[in-house]
Amino acid sequence: MSHEQFQHCIDECLKCMQACNHCYDACLNEEHVAMMKECIRLDRDCADMCAFAAQAMSRNSLYAKELCRICADICEACGNECKKHDHAHCQQCAEACFSCAKACRTMAG
Amino acid sequence: MSHEQFQHCIDECLKCMQACNHCYDACLNEEHVAMMKECIRLDRDCADMCAFAAQAMSRNSLYAKELCRICADICEACGNECKKHDHAHCQQCAEACFSCAKACRTMAG
Amino acid sequence: MSHEQFQHCIDECLKCMQACNHCYDACLNEEHVAMMKECIRLDRDCADMCAFAAQAMSRNSLYAKELCRICADICEACGNECKKHDHAHCQQCAEACFSCAKACRTMAG
Amino acid sequence: MSHEQFQHCIDECLKCMQACNHCYDACLNEEHVAMMKECIRLDRDCADMCAFAAQAMSRNSLYAKELCRICADICEACGNECKKHDHAHCQQCAEACFSCAKACRTMAG
Repeated sequence: MSHEQFQHCIDECLKCMQACNHCYDACLNEEHVAMMKECIRLDRDCADMCAFAAQAMSRNSLYAKELCRICADICEACGNECKKHDHAHCQQCAEACFSCAKACRTMAG
Repeated sequence: MSHEQFQHCIDECLKCMQACNHCYDACLNEEHVAMMKECIRLDRDCADMCAFAAQAMSRNSLYAKELCRICADICEACGNECKKHDHAHCQQCAEACFSCAKACRTMAG
Repeated sequence: MSHEQFQHCIDECLKCMQACNHCYDACLNEEHVAMMKECIRLDRDCADMCAFAAQAMSRNSLYAKELCRICADICEACGNECKKHDHAHCQQCAEACFSCAKACRTMAG
Repeated sequence: MSHEQFQHCIDECLKCMQACNHCYDACLNEEHVAMMKECIRLDRDCADMCAFAAQAMSRNSLYAKELCRICADICEACGNECKKHDHAHCQQCAEACFSCAKACRTMAG
């Protein structure tokens, strides 16, 4: 794993964390919040996981790769939920999730 | 998974988190801190993972089981490092880690 | 601050974290989820803050008291929101929040 | 608070989190680790606080400003400790800490 791949994955996780938290906040402000409840749950799971993985990678934890594997799973699930919804925040979040999932799969090896 | 098994695993994670953080603090106060550096690293990894898993379980996350699997791995690694050292805080931490690892393996199924 | 007061505050934070996460999950399952959106937001804020404060206290961080002060503020806000709602999970969460707020105020001094 | 100031503070927190975790890892690898123990403690406190504040800001939490106030305090303490040490990772961390403290003070208002 090169330093560049490592830094790329940290950057992707931190972008995805922000997109998920933005989507979480926006979903809770939507008129039809009941339709967004799976999105809200997954946004929190995904934001928290991305922050956790970025912390582990940046302190060079022995468990960084194993954490990236589960981070990729959660990002994919969150992206799949978000892409069902037409809101701009959901579409942007889906894009960030899929991009982060790809970087995490590469890290996980 | 019964409610009792679920609550037991949360309780174990929260006890282990406290034992690891206490060991981390005490290791940094030891005279021969250089000998404790792997213990310090793993104590942080394990405390953070246990807190993260407990949060996921208590909000009924879909990823609780998957997180418990990696939590068990980290608890075992931390317990194995701690049990090498004679300090009371390390021995107590090792015990908490192995007990938590067992509960997490049961949760992970 | 005696060891007993310290441990009491950690215990309160970890109970409150669980109550908030349980309430968060249950609110997202309620039929009228739109009425629960402030509760959902505050449940997450409060669960995350309580976990964070408990971690800081258990590693004897210099910032434990300062973190308990803001934890008390968030617990009070979450308790005040929860007590407006008749659901058992909200009433139980309010009780845990007020109890934790009291312990955190004592810690903060 | 403009959107640009808000995003600037999130960016600073995430840069500081990475610098602190890198310094934490590097301090634990230094030959004279006993001299670095206050740095190790504060690096963890500061990395965790920065990640926590960035999460709160990015989900538009009501407590973002209050969290930025304590984040600024911890960043200043960590920066003051790091700048005592000649290691490049400590000097770079001190710089990131002081820059983040400034952004957090502006956010806190």
